Amino acid sequence: MTDMLSAETGTQTGDHAVERTIRHNDRTHVLHSWSAQAKIDPLPVEGGLGSTFWDYQGNSYLDFGAQLVNLNLGHQHPDLVKSIQDQAGKMATIQPAFANDVRGELAALIASKAPGTLNKVFFTNGGAEANENAVRMARAFTGKSKILAQYRSYHGATSTAMALTGDPRRWANEPGAASVAHFFGPYAYRSPFHSSSPEEESARALEHLESVIVLEGASTIGGIIIETVVGTNGILVPPPGYLPGVRALCDKYGIVYIADEVMAGFGRIGEWFAVDAFDVVPDLISFAKGVNSGYVPLGGVVMSDEIAAIFDEKAYPGGLTYSGHPLACAPGVATFKVFERDGILAHVRDLGSRVVKPILESWLHKHPSVGEIRGQGLFWAVELVTNKDTREPLVPFNAAGEAARPMAEVVAACKARGVWPMTNNNRVHICPPLVITEEELRAGLAAIDEALTVADGFVR
Amino acid sequence: MTDMLSAETGTQTGDHAVERTIRHNDRTHVLHSWSAQAKIDPLPVEGGLGSTFWDYQGNSYLDFGAQLVNLNLGHQHPDLVKSIQDQAGKMATIQPAFANDVRGELAALIASKAPGTLNKVFFTNGGAEANENAVRMARAFTGKSKILAQYRSYHGATSTAMALTGDPRRWANEPGAASVAHFFGPYAYRSPFHSSSPEEESARALEHLESVIVLEGASTIGGIIIETVVGTNGILVPPPGYLPGVRALCDKYGIVYIADEVMAGFGRIGEWFAVDAFDVVPDLISFAKGVNSGYVPLGGVVMSDEIAAIFDEKAYPGGLTYSGHPLACAPGVATFKVFERDGILAHVRDLGSRVVKPILESWLHKHPSVGEIRGQGLFWAVELVTNKDTREPLVPFNAAGEAARPMAEVVAACKARGVWPMTNNNRVHICPPLVITEEELRAGLAAIDEALTVADGFVR
Ligand SMILES: Cc1ncc(COP(=O)(O)O)c(C=O)c1O
Ligand SMILES: Cc1ncc(COP(=O)(O)O)c(C=O)c1O
Repeated sequence: MTDMLSAETGTQTGDHAVERTIRHNDRTHVLHSWSAQAKIDPLPVEGGLGSTFWDYQGNSYLDFGAQLVNLNLGHQHPDLVKSIQDQAGKMATIQPAFANDVRGELAALIASKAPGTLNKVFFTNGGAEANENAVRMARAFTGKSKILAQYRSYHGATSTAMALTGDPRRWANEPGAASVAHFFGPYAYRSPFHSSSPEEESARALEHLESVIVLEGASTIGGIIIETVVGTNGILVPPPGYLPGVRALCDKYGIVYIADEVMAGFGRIGEWFAVDAFDVVPDLISFAKGVNSGYVPLGGVVMSDEIAAIFDEKAYPGGLTYSGHPLACAPGVATFKVFERDGILAHVRDLGSRVVKPILESWLHKHPSVGEIRGQGLFWAVELVTNKDTREPLVPFNAAGEAARPMAEVVAACKARGVWPMTNNNRVHICPPLVITEEELRAGLAAIDEALTVADGFVR
Repeated sequence: MTDMLSAETGTQTGDHAVERTIRHNDRTHVLHSWSAQAKIDPLPVEGGLGSTFWDYQGNSYLDFGAQLVNLNLGHQHPDLVKSIQDQAGKMATIQPAFANDVRGELAALIASKAPGTLNKVFFTNGGAEANENAVRMARAFTGKSKILAQYRSYHGATSTAMALTGDPRRWANEPGAASVAHFFGPYAYRSPFHSSSPEEESARALEHLESVIVLEGASTIGGIIIETVVGTNGILVPPPGYLPGVRALCDKYGIVYIADEVMAGFGRIGEWFAVDAFDVVPDLISFAKGVNSGYVPLGGVVMSDEIAAIFDEKAYPGGLTYSGHPLACAPGVATFKVFERDGILAHVRDLGSRVVKPILESWLHKHPSVGEIRGQGLFWAVELVTNKDTREPLVPFNAAGEAARPMAEVVAACKARGVWPMTNNNRVHICPPLVITEEELRAGLAAIDEALTVADGFVR
């Protein structure tokens, strides 16, 4: 098996013994997420720095997905590495029932940036657990169990998080957790509401949401969870007025508003919390990924004073062994320092509006396959179509195998040009580390620009 | 608030500014697991080494719970610390879709120690996610969704893991995930089956389990999950023949046998995997905690070849951003090296049988409050009663507040003698780090011995 694999990828026999061992161990002993194991060929990565990583063959790639859109401060950021090394030397771990310096410091920092009265944090290991706990809080607070979530969303893979998810990854996990209903969010380019402007899309999406609330029964609904900017399912930036409208509906019907900012938070769109760009204060924000760039697994929920208060006298009915893990919190604290010192938010906004937006807009005219571009900060989608008028996606929804070949070819063309792209369905997502330089960003976009000629070849 | 807290705990005004800040941040910004926040007073811990940790007041404690029974190699083990520091400097993180050296190496090491054909690992961040994925695998493999789990069990706090859990932490989370049913496991001291010997307990428990399978419908049951040695709910060591009997029932009815070894695995009872002590090979083992002593959040499931095979052509319907996180795997690899080099398993068995067992047995005679002692390796329970004949627990099941005072006094007496005990309901659990020295172990047990005179005072 070892030989076969190395032959397939062109490793010269005798060389690269390390790579061969890695491939062998990986293929024999590691089960990979979301994949048919016989159909994947995981690339051994040797190292990374900043916005680049490289394999054992001497190929390096601009990381245009920031791994899984978690590596906001890039590979091997010296401040994050040092914070981990120092914390490991001082106190690697302590259980959640004690008080701990870095845990408290990170919670205070998060509270200082979170909007409204969101002042208390419950820490988890990742995004799925964050959403599990946000739902737990919403249910405890309202005494109502149903949660509304959007189609075209991803909230994680534990049972409740999976049930909330509005993409095909839910299908194989059904029947799943009960007490969840899905509604349509705004998506102007493929409007579920037949709208013809962002304002109309917003108004109609709110009208639809209110209908769902009424028909599902406001008296049964404890929470509404929304990715502030929908991530994996399309980088869907909410149109003007939508999120404030959701807030108003939540107030009207006594529903907790949960903002899932696992992907959109911590600088991705140039804000600490993405809700800040949309003038809205939710009751709960779930976070993970960017909080410490995923150098150590960490997630959590920041909650309003009103919700926190109910757990003063009544026991909070959730927990986990590694809640508020010091080794995970240390790079979280370092993240805040780096963001402030290096002006990360301003850098993201500047690159987004001055570099990414105009370049992507030029693709709209240049490439017959580019149907729409949208995004904010360093969080963009390029939607590929076979025809600009019909807007038919370059590949069908949830396509696999031969049906997905056009996108596979686009991916290959990007990789051949030194960019490791993030794609989903018929879209290329642009979400590099936030520390990317203007030069790297331009180089990566130029490579993707070239690769899109492959997509153009499929236009009918 | 700061002043109030420091006054309560006797901090002298003006001193201990660091501790005051920690307490302030903690109380203002951190929500703690499973607790009514106004009723707890989390102790700031300054540091730890080996089996000891200390606060900011100069008090040190023998850690007789190994934090949450995760710190198998103790506080600040130099090899684990170094493995983290080195890995952080080399590659802190890489996403799950790539192949990675330490991830593959740890998976291979786990496979090398796992029984039977359990050769492939899916990594998670902790125990709850491990069980969520074990259930996902059992369901995918059998096409049957119901999972049987034991009363008196803990499997974690995400929705499915919580629904499986058989202790009061489930209550506040109900209604929870569907398709779970509970059965009684063996517990000779308080036999649910009116048995009078371990052999009879085992036989009757199996008869009961088969009745539940038949009445729930074998055609509906995809898995049975059992903590190999029940941990938090009582350190219940299975009587002879029980687990092999469960295996036989699973084979008879086409059910996947899931062993939850989040707490019992990785040396806690002197075996790599606890099933090895009971001559049984499950289909799936979930693990976490001891795999890397919790220095970095890590868990996972090791699966049989037969189960792994179904995900060769069919996509595995689960995933998480930090599956197989390199920084978490590095101390996992180091754990294997330390275990082998330092003979940890032999040390645990020796201390368990030569030191703990005889001392605890002597308490049975010495203390009127000690109703039963049981355990293996460094995993023991001392069950406290108000009366040896009636076996009435020292505090009622799930007692809180005043009703729980006798146990609170035992805890306080332990702490006053320099031991931080692990207790649950009417039991003191003895589960220190596995690296504890004989001298420390004897000292800690002597302190608990003294503290038990407090329990004796409640005997009627
Ligand atoms: C918006 C959103 N929520 C939740 C999650 C789940 O996070 P995790 O994979 O850490 O469980 C993700 C992961 O991609 C996400 O993008
Ligand atoms: C047997 C068992 N399973 C699962 C878990 C849950 O693990 P975690 O807290 O890492 O989610 C625990 C935690 O104590 C446990 O003891």
